[in-house]
Amino acid sequence: MNIQLALDRMTIDDAINMAKRVKDHVDWIEVGTSLIKEFGMESVKRMKEAFPDKTIVADIKTNDNAKYEFELCFKNGADVATVMGTAPKATIQACISVARQYQKNVMIDLLNVSQENLEMLSQFDQAILCAHVSKDEQELSGKSQCLIQLPSSIIKNNRIAAAGGITIDSMKRLASDSPEVVIIGSAITKAEKPEKVAKEFKDFIRQLI
Amino acid sequence: MNIQLALDRMTIDDAINMAKRVKDHVDWIEVGTSLIKEFGMESVKRMKEAFPDKTIVADIKTNDNAKYEFELCFKNGADVATVMGTAPKATIQACISVARQYQKNVMIDLLNVSQENLEMLSQFDQAILCAHVSKDEQELSGKSQCLIQLPSSIIKNNRIAAAGGITIDSMKRLASDSPEVVIIGSAITKAEKPEKVAKEFKDFIRQLI
Repeated sequence: MNIQLALDRMTIDDAINMAKRVKDHVDWIEVGTSLIKEFGMESVKRMKEAFPDKTIVADIKTNDNAKYEFELCFKNGADVATVMGTAPKATIQACISVARQYQKNVMIDLLNVSQENLEMLSQFDQAILCAHVSKDEQELSGKSQCLIQLPSSIIKNNRIAAAGGITIDSMKRLASDSPEVVIIGSAITKAEKPEKVAKEFKDFIRQLI
Repeated sequence: MNIQLALDRMTIDDAINMAKRVKDHVDWIEVGTSLIKEFGMESVKRMKEAFPDKTIVADIKTNDNAKYEFELCFKNGADVATVMGTAPKATIQACISVARQYQKNVMIDLLNVSQENLEMLSQFDQAILCAHVSKDEQELSGKSQCLIQLPSSIIKNNRIAAAGGITIDSMKRLASDSPEVVIIGSAITKAEKPEKVAKEFKDFIRQLI
């Protein structure tokens, strides 16, 4: 189980500094959507330069124009780029195709995806399906990601990630589904001692094995 | 009927230069998603500085984190920002609320929205609903926007925009639905003489009145 550190709502410098503090306890580093939309591809480029040996995820949340956006990400150093599960099938297929060409990976964000669409998306078995409770829904309802609400056939057969307000407590409930990736943002980045919290997540995962 | 010039897949300088060439024939200027994701908010800021009197649309295509993304757009000079119709309702409501606070506008991108969701979205009567054939679907099927495929009740009661491969020919068919905004990109930006084509669109609209 990999820990993906999500970096959002901060400057590129602050994001790099935060990642430096916790790098020994995280596996993947996500350049959050807010960084990409605020600072552009410079955010992805600088993160890869700072961490050439880490898996860098560009959370570009593509809805359209897949080839252009995914090539931007991969040319700037991303190892994984994200596409919305609500995007047209043509867009998702184009993302898969560009990723294959660059020998990189696709993460499909399942935010607000219908059950019907989920069935279709589960056919993309090279991609990582990311179960995702949105920031806006968390803020509205206090709801966070404590269970991966996906059919068991998908949990069993697909590559899975989970995101959205994950804490050490919710992590314990998530772990039974053994996702390939758990995406953790503010629980680490807003902690008083990010290193300590990141290590707690990592230690928790280590003892599962 | 307003013409929104969509600027995509180019540098900020090229986008500003293109807008300068056709500014007399277009009403709104869109900083395309690709510009925002490649160059960040600098693209929105510089476009507003270059055209302080035009309506600047930031095609940020928000899926989540609405308050942060919409404030970024409005603080950098956008007059309109876009949210995906496929986003959670909490996100769309947050966009409407931020726009009201800043006395700016919201455009809801109807890309891949279900009929059921469309019904819900039509309740946001302050927002502009944008019927949208995606770039990726156009490239796959040659399909472009020649009819606004929305229920007549929505065309009658909501603020409407249309986007996706619009040409002078398809414009003629679109016109009967009298959208508030027609979004035109490559028909102008990739023309040999962008000024001439932009003027043709504007002249066509003028003779409708």
